[in-house]
Amino acid sequence: MSQWENYLQENFDRFLQELLDFLRIPSVSALPEHAQDVQRAAEWTAKRLQSAGLEKVQVLSTGGHPVVYGEWLHAKGKPTVMIYGHFDTQPADPLELWTHPPFEPTIEGDRIYARGATDDKGNLLIPIVAVEALLQTEKALPVNIKFLLEGQEEIGSPQIPDFVAEHRDLLACDFIYSADGSLWGENQPAIYISMRGICALQIDVQGPKHDLHSGAYGGTVQNPIHALVQLLVSMRGPDGRITVEGFYENVLPMTREDQEKMAAIPFDEEAFKKEIGVDELFGEPEYTPWERIGVRPTLELNGIWGGFQGEGTKTIIPSEAHAKITCRLVPNQDPRKVLDCIEAHIIKNRPKGVRINIQKGGAYAKPYAVPMDHPAVQAAHRVFEELYGVAPYYVRGGGSIPICSTFLDELQAHTVTFCFGLPDEQAHAPNEFFRLSSFRKGQKAYVLLLKHLGAANG
Amino acid sequence: MSQWENYLQENFDRFLQELLDFLRIPSVSALPEHAQDVQRAAEWTAKRLQSAGLEKVQVLSTGGHPVVYGEWLHAKGKPTVMIYGHFDTQPADPLELWTHPPFEPTIEGDRIYARGATDDKGNLLIPIVAVEALLQTEKALPVNIKFLLEGQEEIGSPQIPDFVAEHRDLLACDFIYSADGSLWGENQPAIYISMRGICALQIDVQGPKHDLHSGAYGGTVQNPIHALVQLLVSMRGPDGRITVEGFYENVLPMTREDQEKMAAIPFDEEAFKKEIGVDELFGEPEYTPWERIGVRPTLELNGIWGGFQGEGTKTIIPSEAHAKITCRLVPNQDPRKVLDCIEAHIIKNRPKGVRINIQKGGAYAKPYAVPMDHPAVQAAHRVFEELYGVAPYYVRGGGSIPICSTFLDELQAHTVTFCFGLPDEQAHAPNEFFRLSSFRKGQKAYVLLLKHLGAANG
Repeated sequence: MSQWENYLQENFDRFLQELLDFLRIPSVSALPEHAQDVQRAAEWTAKRLQSAGLEKVQVLSTGGHPVVYGEWLHAKGKPTVMIYGHFDTQPADPLELWTHPPFEPTIEGDRIYARGATDDKGNLLIPIVAVEALLQTEKALPVNIKFLLEGQEEIGSPQIPDFVAEHRDLLACDFIYSADGSLWGENQPAIYISMRGICALQIDVQGPKHDLHSGAYGGTVQNPIHALVQLLVSMRGPDGRITVEGFYENVLPMTREDQEKMAAIPFDEEAFKKEIGVDELFGEPEYTPWERIGVRPTLELNGIWGGFQGEGTKTIIPSEAHAKITCRLVPNQDPRKVLDCIEAHIIKNRPKGVRINIQKGGAYAKPYAVPMDHPAVQAAHRVFEELYGVAPYYVRGGGSIPICSTFLDELQAHTVTFCFGLPDEQAHAPNEFFRLSSFRKGQKAYVLLLKHLGAANG
Repeated sequence: MSQWENYLQENFDRFLQELLDFLRIPSVSALPEHAQDVQRAAEWTAKRLQSAGLEKVQVLSTGGHPVVYGEWLHAKGKPTVMIYGHFDTQPADPLELWTHPPFEPTIEGDRIYARGATDDKGNLLIPIVAVEALLQTEKALPVNIKFLLEGQEEIGSPQIPDFVAEHRDLLACDFIYSADGSLWGENQPAIYISMRGICALQIDVQGPKHDLHSGAYGGTVQNPIHALVQLLVSMRGPDGRITVEGFYENVLPMTREDQEKMAAIPFDEEAFKKEIGVDELFGEPEYTPWERIGVRPTLELNGIWGGFQGEGTKTIIPSEAHAKITCRLVPNQDPRKVLDCIEAHIIKNRPKGVRINIQKGGAYAKPYAVPMDHPAVQAAHRVFEELYGVAPYYVRGGGSIPICSTFLDELQAHTVTFCFGLPDEQAHAPNEFFRLSSFRKGQKAYVLLLKHLGAANG
């Protein structure tokens, strides 16, 4: 057994105690009364980076919750790798559903129960411990390392894009590993090679200045709900294809490799339908469900309202109707251009007899992808294969992680997920937990990753 | 001046004091705490019928608020005319908007302010007073008279259809005048010769069993809001024409006379648009606004809801979406058949990937019309012309008065409005009032009406 592996084994109990300490800090970024706790978690993280042997460790202010930075840059000629994670947590409510208090971490068998255990404190501590093991046993790292750990991920990282733009030199790196996320299953690693972007808008339809009696006025004026549904239907065909002109304009077609990688991920349609409670799936028929999630954009109606919603009948022509829309976008769609297309479509298809207002904005992220042959992907692939005995799935995620495109735009560096959460660990839900076995396996994985990167590059 | 006219003039102050007494009873049928007041109003009305000289006066129970009946049936060979009205009122709230307490009637100039003044206590007292004047001065009436006055009109007369069906013999008559309603304007009488029917339904669309993350699931399942709007749009063309198969099947085409009568009613499009606050009117282009209100059915979306309605963005595929629909119907549409057509349309056009539930019911009324050449219409016409110096408008009302079709179905008798409210008198709103001049003019009009009917018939 190598020295670093020995070190990880001998110090495992200490690392675990440290994780428990870390989890006791209720660093809930969404709740103003916990702002000091987020600050404490930043200071705890900074201290931990220092004790691991990192240099220039700083708690940096952002205008909101802080960021923690640390570096070790003595691997001359080797790449600079940044590790990203976050020390803030989701709120814990509903408290009554927790079997253990959320900020009194409890170990049961292989599980540590606490808010933030898997998302993201357990995952975040793994690379710190890995770096410490190497610095303690080998006095050096195989590559240059920077840590960027933030305290506002759970509220959408509002100040982080500006922070990254203002600290381009400090954060300059070749690529980034994100220690925030999860694998496919306990025995099946995964690398997220793309995430969809997002853009949002609200449509407000204004008809008569107040609700009208549907008898006295019915037949003389446009009904704002009719006008709204007409407009919404004009945006999507009955097969799910979006009919807004220009919507698909910059969508990259699937490559054969994309198709193969997605086909390699099992999809149990019956289990999927049962999980969500539908009788049949729906979407562009020429794509598989994974393809529709991974490489196809959507235009989804998130909410609609207008007129009477109570029990019984209210015989009105309502004054207003509203709808909320978000689009999930894929490379190389531009969220701003997509919003412009939708706006142009609405203006062109405006129903008669109503006034229409469009509020663009809300959720916003560019789509993000890392090439499958990127060296950071390939290094992660090799480590996963070595540790798990199977090749990782290359997953095209349907959700959005805005920071990946921020890093790409500002630092010209791609981000690859390398993290050890598992999908059943109740992130964002009561009774969140992290596996001790993942905590242990991840430490070894990160050391191997850094060694691979050092050996392969420079 | 004839004796009856003298009698009306000499007793006007007493009639006015009686009206004030009547208005002091807070007979709000919607509020259980006022049930005793509705009963008191019934007893007041019965006593007043008795003192006017009517016979067999009774307060009859219905299972809900009571009905008052009275008759005078000694005009052998003459028609039997029933007079309809109601002694219950709308609630008075919002109280703070009343300049006088709603149940402390106050006279200011030509106006009596009180809840129920125009709707319908002032209007209801008019024919009672007219009958009294004739019985006092001529010891007989020109026709047979029955009064059916009810206490539940403002809550939709739930027990009245059954009551009428169970009292067919007692209520048998040749035709009915309704003392509930209004004229066109102070100098312009009107006769409502038709009212639209109504039917109602709710559509419930069920998608996934709970809201889904629009990133993780977007592209795999039907969005219930998309499904709903698709269904709703399939029911109406962009020009306002309803596209539900069979919807127009029994609609009577307009006659040339219909068209002429409707064209005679002025329509100031600019004032109408300004009143309701729209830039343009909307509806089947081959009909005028009056025609669309009077002789064309509608399918109106009264309410819609589903998913997120708050500030900002919530990136979900919602679990459910709902819409409320009412149709206004014209002769000879049958509300039940129209609901069946809509149900069949929904089943035929069901979007994929969701479950749909249809709740039929809520507001319900058959469309109603009285022939323009009906003797009751012609008698009203002549009286109005004599008193106002102009022919009444023949109005096809857009709203629904369910009792008219109940009378037609159960008693084979048509109903004609003969009443003296005016559209500006704040029925159902704060500061409701009735005009003293209308109270006076109406009394004379009812005597003339009965005399015309007696002279023309038998």
